[in-house]
Amino acid sequence: MEKREDQILRAAVGIFGSRGYERTSLQDIADVVGVTKPALYYYFRDKDTLYARVVVEALRQLVDYVEARVSRHSEPEDRLREFLMSAATFLGEHRETWLLASGGFWSAATGDYREEALRLRDHFEGMLRDALAQAISAGALRSVDVALAGRLLLSGLNQMHRWHSPDGPLSVVEVADRYLDFVLNGLRAERPAAVSEPPAGARRARRARSPVK
Amino acid sequence: MEKREDQILRAAVGIFGSRGYERTSLQDIADVVGVTKPALYYYFRDKDTLYARVVVEALRQLVDYVEARVSRHSEPEDRLREFLMSAATFLGEHRETWLLASGGFWSAATGDYREEALRLRDHFEGMLRDALAQAISAGALRSVDVALAGRLLLSGLNQMHRWHSPDGPLSVVEVADRYLDFVLNGLRAERPAAVSEPPAGARRARRARSPVK
Repeated sequence: MEKREDQILRAAVGIFGSRGYERTSLQDIADVVGVTKPALYYYFRDKDTLYARVVVEALRQLVDYVEARVSRHSEPEDRLREFLMSAATFLGEHRETWLLASGGFWSAATGDYREEALRLRDHFEGMLRDALAQAISAGALRSVDVALAGRLLLSGLNQMHRWHSPDGPLSVVEVADRYLDFVLNGLRAERPAAVSEPPAGARRARRARSPVK
Repeated sequence: MEKREDQILRAAVGIFGSRGYERTSLQDIADVVGVTKPALYYYFRDKDTLYARVVVEALRQLVDYVEARVSRHSEPEDRLREFLMSAATFLGEHRETWLLASGGFWSAATGDYREEALRLRDHFEGMLRDALAQAISAGALRSVDVALAGRLLLSGLNQMHRWHSPDGPLSVVEVADRYLDFVLNGLRAERPAAVSEPPAGARRARRARSPVK
């Protein structure tokens, strides 16, 4: 039989996930589990503590989901692509859990579960950075700051729930795939194949025109 | 002399901007302006309405700031770069106003100021999309979905306040410059200059290995 604490946690993931922090009361959660409010307090000190525990649980589910899929690949670029595709798939299929993991992180990172929240976040971002660093070592990618490159891709994922509509032309997984294409291949036009190849330094020279101001 | 309504609005931008929506009361704002709470209600129906008006004001300041700088350039790529650099400069120098414009938009987009908030947001994003579309027309960039490419860059900007520390090695403007470099030039390694140039189809072939799954 499922432990009472786990029952509460499972109910809380569902209710916080669908209504958000503000519109959820401990009474709502107690009602779903079928316990009294004082019984909740036996397991969780207050609403903030329960919420932080819920966010950590959501983060753990996200990390486990993505890690299981990334670990099937050995090529750095396949691992990089799998990270983004599986994170986007998780967002598409477990939207409420994604929102808890992504949006709740900043509040969970301040209380009782701070250490665990930071550890999971670092592990998640670490998978992305490692794949980028390995692709650089293998010579497939140029030597950029992997933390910054990872942040741009994660920012794209983290903002997606704000604007993406399930009725739109592209799924979240397709959007993540386009983002990865933009970042891997760049937006610069290439010369048409019929035109002779530009000299070897041409692209590098364009890049040199873009210094930090 | 400054109109009373403008005084209230200016005080509200400062207080909502520094404390956030939850921790700001109408009494706080009335105290700063030196009026009674009923006097506030003469100008603004409730806290949500005043907050939405404040967000629209913040958006207007951001749009005016960026537009004044983008309009100094005629080359599409210069306009694209200026959009990102000036938006990041605004974030660095007017952080609280940025947070109101960026974070408050989704709540402002539901009430009395919905039309105005949407118009300003569309105008802001439109500057970025137009610069991208013009650069594509000019043949400088490949023909991608400008809405998606713009969203990736804006996502990078919108998430920056979450993780960026003013004590870190890069300013927000430098981070935005790196993001633009990643997206314009891509992360793919180039052959060293000493090695002979790859055939014209090589980069295209790599790209073709990355279809939407």
